[in-house]
Amino acid sequence: MPHEIDCWITLGSTYSYLTVMRVPQVTESSGVQVRFRPFHLLQIFKEMNYFPFPPDAPKTRYMWQDVARRAELYGIPLKLPVTYPASQSIVANRIALLGLREGWGYEYMRAAYRNWFVAGKETGSEPNVGDSLREIGQDPRRVLPLANGAEIDGALMAETSIAKAAGIFGSPTFCIGDQLFWGDDRLEDAIRWAKYGTLANAKV
Amino acid sequence: MPHEIDCWITLGSTYSYLTVMRVPQVTESSGVQVRFRPFHLLQIFKEMNYFPFPPDAPKTRYMWQDVARRAELYGIPLKLPVTYPASQSIVANRIALLGLREGWGYEYMRAAYRNWFVAGKETGSEPNVGDSLREIGQDPRRVLPLANGAEIDGALMAETSIAKAAGIFGSPTFCIGDQLFWGDDRLEDAIRWAKYGTLANAKV
Repeated sequence: MPHEIDCWITLGSTYSYLTVMRVPQVTESSGVQVRFRPFHLLQIFKEMNYFPFPPDAPKTRYMWQDVARRAELYGIPLKLPVTYPASQSIVANRIALLGLREGWGYEYMRAAYRNWFVAGKETGSEPNVGDSLREIGQDPRRVLPLANGAEIDGALMAETSIAKAAGIFGSPTFCIGDQLFWGDDRLEDAIRWAKYGTLANAKV
Repeated sequence: MPHEIDCWITLGSTYSYLTVMRVPQVTESSGVQVRFRPFHLLQIFKEMNYFPFPPDAPKTRYMWQDVARRAELYGIPLKLPVTYPASQSIVANRIALLGLREGWGYEYMRAAYRNWFVAGKETGSEPNVGDSLREIGQDPRRVLPLANGAEIDGALMAETSIAKAAGIFGSPTFCIGDQLFWGDDRLEDAIRWAKYGTLANAKV
């Protein structure tokens, strides 16, 4: 049985772009499977009365500097400036959740991020949503009513409640049992933990 | 001329413990010199009306889980729970600043962290302050009036203003020109940048 990691992800997150692009390569040879679990982090932030990256804050400027450097490190395309925050990121989260149920969720996440971070189309809004769906062979006229319907919205909120109860406060967060690994820069640590149950003295 | 990194550090920070303990080994073979610059991050947090790790918050619980895993990874001793936050961390910052001027600052930082994170004595308060100074051969009766005097206090506040103007919002932050690297987990990146001016395609 393969080792499994839950990757809690919200599609409006910046660092999560790196994770979406890196997962196949990083996990390929590890024998570890990553299960993406979209949730709506903004809901948790609202309940905390907190937003990590307000416009013009030093931390926000740093975040873009850091994301850009790491994208270059990994050879991941990025064109700054990126429109942020994405006001309709909840739509992207709903589509991803539906897509993962139907088997095309990962392809949607990649397309939505590429259209946002490279082509300059804000995620969750048009034309990103329609373009991303069509690129992966999905019909927006079928998908959007389902994604924005009561069932998927309820499922996204249920997942968000589970994430909050697990102590999750950021995206991506990798979970293995009660061990949380927050941030794209902890992906390798999470894989190590999934395989060996420790970070120390482990061959990767 | 060796490559230089400014390491902005506040002695009340948890992740900075890892950096203080790791710097000699990580920098030894790299030809990069790290210059520690103590500042009082709590002052910046106060001005932002923000504190990253309130008691019982999910992020705070995560921080200790993450610090403990990484300490184990690096073979750095740690005995939980650690008293946090340290109410008198400003005293530790003043002593470190004085000590760096006089040539014993790094030894003090190591001793103060070891006494805090291993021996359970809160940094900046007694008995940590006196014990740490005596362990490194410094007389508290000479050091403390100097450290708590107007000159060092003014110097610490001046350094804090410089850090804030540079966009620093956390500790440790490694600076190379206008490039900031926030967090102990960016130490290797900072060294790479200091040597090669990029993270990509660089041999470490």
